Parts: sequence; C-alpha cells; structure tokens
Amino acid sequence: MSDLVRALPHPADFPAPPSDGDRARWAEADAGARPARLGRLRERMAAAGVDAYFGVRPEHMRYLTGFALDDNEDRVAGNSGRFLVSADQVVVLADSRYRLQAEAQAPGARIEATTYDLAAIWPQLVESLGARRVAVESAHVSHQLWGQLEVATPGVELLDAAGWVEADRAVKEPAEIERIKAACAVADRALAAIVRRIKPGQTERELALLLEWEMRTGGADALAFGIACLAGPNAALPHGSPSGREVLLGQVLLFDFGAMVDGYRSDMTRTLFVGGPAERDLEIYETVAGAQVAAMDLLEAGLRRGGGAASGKAVDAAARGVIEAAGHGEHFGHGTGHGIGLATHELPSLSRAAPDDPLPSPTVFSVEPGIYLDGEMGVRIEDLVLFDRGQRNLLRLTGFPREALVVGV
Amino acid sequence: MSDLVRALPHPADFPAPPSDGDRARWAEADAGARPARLGRLRERMAAAGVDAYFGVRPEHMRYLTGFALDDNEDRVAGNSGRFLVSADQVVVLADSRYRLQAEAQAPGARIEATTYDLAAIWPQLVESLGARRVAVESAHVSHQLWGQLEVATPGVELLDAAGWVEADRAVKEPAEIERIKAACAVADRALAAIVRRIKPGQTERELALLLEWEMRTGGADALAFGIACLAGPNAALPHGSPSGREVLLGQVLLFDFGAMVDGYRSDMTRTLFVGGPAERDLEIYETVAGAQVAAMDLLEAGLRRGGGAASGKAVDAAARGVIEAAGHGEHFGHGTGHGIGLATHELPSLSRAAPDDPLPSPTVFSVEPGIYLDGEMGVRIEDLVLFDRGQRNLLRLTGFPREALVVGV
Repeated sequence: MSDLVRALPHPADFPAPPSDGDRARWAEADAGARPARLGRLRERMAAAGVDAYFGVRPEHMRYLTGFALDDNEDRVAGNSGRFLVSADQVVVLADSRYRLQAEAQAPGARIEATTYDLAAIWPQLVESLGARRVAVESAHVSHQLWGQLEVATPGVELLDAAGWVEADRAVKEPAEIERIKAACAVADRALAAIVRRIKPGQTERELALLLEWEMRTGGADALAFGIACLAGPNAALPHGSPSGREVLLGQVLLFDFGAMVDGYRSDMTRTLFVGGPAERDLEIYETVAGAQVAAMDLLEAGLRRGGGAASGKAVDAAARGVIEAAGHGEHFGHGTGHGIGLATHELPSLSRAAPDDPLPSPTVFSVEPGIYLDGEMGVRIEDLVLFDRGQRNLLRLTGFPREALVVGV
Repeated sequence: MSDLVRALPHPADFPAPPSDGDRARWAEADAGARPARLGRLRERMAAAGVDAYFGVRPEHMRYLTGFALDDNEDRVAGNSGRFLVSADQVVVLADSRYRLQAEAQAPGARIEATTYDLAAIWPQLVESLGARRVAVESAHVSHQLWGQLEVATPGVELLDAAGWVEADRAVKEPAEIERIKAACAVADRALAAIVRRIKPGQTERELALLLEWEMRTGGADALAFGIACLAGPNAALPHGSPSGREVLLGQVLLFDFGAMVDGYRSDMTRTLFVGGPAERDLEIYETVAGAQVAAMDLLEAGLRRGGGAASGKAVDAAARGVIEAAGHGEHFGHGTGHGIGLATHELPSLSRAAPDDPLPSPTVFSVEPGIYLDGEMGVRIEDLVLFDRGQRNLLRLTGFPREALVVGV
C-alpha cells in the first residue's frame, strides 16, 4: 500500500498551461480552417438541393462563424449568434447586446440585427440570400420556432438537417486536437495538485471547489462541465453532484471533471482510494481497468491490421465483455465512451446503441467503463484518446496515472 | 471623491450566507408546494382538454417533480429528467446514470427507465397514462423529437403547451423569494469583499475569478451565470466576457454577476469608477441611476394608487424616457428588466416588446437600464426587486449601494 501512496503524481509531471503564443496560433488556425468547414457544409447543402442552412447550436456558431458564446450565455442570448449560410454568404444574427462581439469574432459574416422575434425578420433574411429551400438544425430548433418560420414564409421550404455539422465536427483538425490535449493537461495538473491535500473529513463539495480552483487558475478558461466529486456510496451515481458528504477512510473517491481551453474540452475520471482499499473494491477497480485496456487493445489491433476502423459498438462490446465476465454486466449501465471537442458529448458514440460504421478519423473520444454498486460504491476510469487511422496512431491524451492510488493517509 | 472612496461597503453590511436550517426549510417548502404547482398545471390541462403534459425544460423538472440537474448537465443527460404529468400521475424518465438521483429527489413520481431513443418507449409511456391528447413544451422540444413522437404514436395528438409553466413560475412563493434574496446577499457580500482589492493593472479575468471565488466560498451553490467583468471600452458590450484586458485608472469597471442558492438565482450589475470619474462618465452614471429611479417610482406610484399593476412595457418606458431625454436613446438597446428565479431570464419581461398586461404578483425582476458608448465605455446599474401588489410592497433585494463608487485608489 505504501507503494500506492508513493506513486502520487506531481503537477510538474504534465505539460505546462497554454501560452499566449499557443492561443494566437489556435485563433489563426481557426480562421484558416473556417473556409474548409463552410466548404464541407456547402457540399452537403448542394447534395441536398438547399440554398441555405439555418444553424442555432452554439458549437456550430463558433465552429463555422467564429461567434462564441460562453456556456449558459446561449440561454439568455435569444436569437443572437444564430446564423445562416448560403453558397456565397454567412449571416450572423446579433441583438444590440452582442453586435460588437459578433463583428469582432465573425469578421467573415454579415451581422444582422435581431430581436427575440425571429419570425418578424425571417422573410427578408431568406430573401436576402435568395433562398427557397432552407436546411434547418431540426434537433436544436424548437417545434414552436419551426412552426413560426413556416408561417412567416409560406413559399420557403424548411428541410431537416440534423447531424450534418455534428458529423463534420467528429473529425478533428490538428489545432483542435492540440486544444483538447491542452485541456487534458490542465485537468491532469489540477488533480495532481490536490491529491496530497485530500484528507478524511473533507466534504465532496470542498474537494470539488479545490480542484476547480486549480483548473481555473491553471490554464482553464472554464470548466468543461460541473465537477463530480463523489465519496463512498455516492460514487454509485454515475452523474452525481458533490454534496456535503464527508470523505471517510476506507471509501472510494471518484472525480469526474474536465477543463475548457479555447472552447475545447477535456473529460477524465479517476477513482481514488481513501486509505487502503478493501479487497473487493480493489478487485472491482482492476476489472474496470481491464475493461479499459480491452477497449484500447481492440482499437490498437485494428490499427496494426490496417483496413477499416473498429466501430463504436465493437469497442463498447470489448470493454463490456470484461465487466460481464466478472459478473458485473448489470452494474455498467452507460456507454463506454463519447466524442468530445467543442461539446462535452459529441460524435462518435461508443455504446451498445452506436452504429456498426467504423469510427471517424482522426477523432478524439473518451474510454470510460465503470461498475456501480447501489448504496455501496462505484468505480470509473476515464481517459481521452486520440484515434488516427491514417497515422496508425492511438494516443492517450489523459496523462494522469491509471493505477489504483491511495490518498488521505 | 474621497467621499466616494469612504463609501465602499463591507461584507458584514449584508445578510450572512444561508444556513443548513434555511436549506432544510426550503426543501420542505418545495415538497409542500409541489402539489399546488401540479394542481395549477392540471387546471391548465383540463381547460385545454389534454390528458397529459410532456415537459423537458430543466427548470420545470425541478419545479414540478423535484428532479434537479446542475447547469449544463442537461446537455449530456439525454432524456433523463424529462417528465409526464397526467391527472393522477407524475412520471420522471431516468437512464441508469440518474436513476438513484431521480428516486431520491422525486419521491412523488414513478421513475421510468429511458435511453437516448425516447420514441422507442413513447407508445407504452402514453398508454400507461391512458393519454390520447398530450400537451408538449413546444418551445423546448426540438422539431426533430416532436416528429419522432408523432410517428411513434399516430393515434395520439400532440398539442402546443408553450408558456404554461413559465406563466405559473412568474408568481413566486415565499420560499422562492427567500432563496432569491439569499442569492442576492451572497452576491452583495462577494462584491463588498473585493472592492478594496481592485487595483489598476489587474485583468478583467483576474477580477472575475476573485469575485467568483468569494461567491463560491460564501454560500453560492454555483454562479447564476458567467461573470461579466468589463473595463473601459469593453463595458460597452452589454454581454461581454472577461478578457485579459488590464483595468486602468480613469476607466469604468462593470461587474454583472449573480449567485445560485438552492437553484434560485440573483443578478446584479455595478459600474465602478477606477480612480476619479471623468465628468462625462459621471453624468452618464447619474442618467442611468435616474432611469432606474424612474422605473421604481412608476411601480411605487401604482402600489400607492391601488388598482392594476403597471405593465412591463410601461416600466420600460419610464426608464427609457429618462435616457432618451438625456439624448442617449440609441445607446440603450436592451430591455429594462426580466423576471428571475430558477432561470436567470424568465417572465415577466420589462421591455418595449413586453405585453400591456399588468405585472404578475408577487414576482421578482431586475431593473437594469444602461447606456453604452461603442469603443468608449458603458454604464449599467441592475438591482433585483420584489413586487408584491397584495402587500403593497416594492422591495429592493439587492443591497449593494447604487451610488457612484471609486475603487483602485
């Protein structure tokens, strides 16, 4: 057990936070990539025979136009940031609160004033693009708004365009991968900075705040999502929130967290042992670790073999098989992984419900098997992985050790 | 000017953070209020002749069922937390990640397992409620999902139910007002804790983080929304994000921020002067302050007079009139205020586009006029206000001084 304690990592084990130079390079890379991103969308538009694309998802605004809203800002932004793409124009909507920001961030777009009543300006908007058939992000446009737009322009046909940009975003550009990697390093360093400070008697909430502070002062622009810090039986809640529960000796302590760097997110989970682990708990840990290895092995075997990549369904089955063989199949309810980038959860999906298609490439996703025993404990180990079929490269972007670690002693 | 410096408030000027006792009382109040909240919804259902209500908005999940998702968690929760209400049942959907949480938080509901494919279980869900006509939150259900549900149950009619629960939530219960007030005090204390530490040369981002830390360690469960900390010309962006810009002597420094306490949010803006204000800037400040007073005066006059409450449109016009009279009409693009509670922006609206109907009561909203000079500066002063017609009560919940204050000297 003292071996486990000695193995605790240090922040300096991981890459330093991004520099201003990194950020300037990424801004330039985005500006340079935007024409190709729009080009891919325009190919889809041409294939579907539509004159315009109406997008509302904040990640798409940023990806295609440069206009970036902070998390939650979209909840109060009304129609600001929503955009239209035609064969030769990009229009970004902005009310008076966001006009200056939109002009600065989306220099390639025409900025059009809007209010909360989009239907009122919709006719002249589509007319300014000469559009008769408009593809709409139907998975993100409300049924109410769709109906209002239909009424506003009876002569314009609205078509379903769910998943177009999502599919393009699953394939990552080099500068996107760099930012996810940087976000992983920020998270690695933050956990390494607090592992020696974890003591029995601290609450989940205190520890979550400590970890957050390290990320926020260590290179993160924001959290990728609310930190899960779950002790003992709470770790059986795969998406629980930190509570006032105190961390006790002999319990597991699960951290699921990530950083955001220049819009790109990381996501990692570590389950630590507070004091020496019970034998049963360590066995479960090793089963989960083995499931993760099985998923990685399948991906690697595919790269060595060449040919088509494994499917998200096959990778899930590889991890799940290990957990089922250990008799814990019914204690692993969620999928094995998800893509990540501008959104925490995006394509590709690695799960029982995932398609049989080969994984896209290059892409980044999580590999995060878990076992959850209601009322007792839970273990999850989650790393982000870069999968690049062309380069025959499978690389863990999460650097924090995956071995069972003991803290709080 | 030294008067302005001396006037800086102290954290102890404001109420202490909520206690465990407060939180226990609020939980009890929510449990007690839920039957009446469901009762109001069922009255609307009966009036519209529908057998069931399908809700997806996270605020409504919490308000009606008790199931509470952290901000942004709804982006990865899939269908978990979505719910159905019939005349005699409440059903909450939860996938394996959220089942234990849903059982604990929504004891009055039947918890039903779900996946990302809601259409697959929709037929048996509506059949279990005997529903033939289902009201749907059409402003929050995507057009895609609406279509999938229609296909899944051709014999079931879906009806538009936009705004039903929103209208009920605009009227606040006493324990809801308590929590908004507590969130206001957390924010007041936090700003009071940092005003003496503001120095020229600090960046917007540093100051925003300092303020956030004070809230997060001073009683806030979370931020109500991302903090705006905007110096000099950046203050002309009504919804800008903190940047690496340094705060300089002679500039304005605008903070727009709020705390979340037990799900309820506060929202306040203060525009401080870093060093002595330029005459022009102080004039603009006084104009904005005068606009706020005009809005409050109109509300108060209505309470004294009795009879119907003022409309959100009339309150907006009162504030806007002062700014227009000062020649800044075109520099005040946004509305004068918005309701607040479980969401940062909710009903009622106080704006040019608001209806002529009298304000609901009791209700809580912001009064936040502003003047923004592109490339130069901006001023906004925002307080939350409790408006209670029955009690003839108009109460500022934001306690921080509204006078022009000088910091950084």
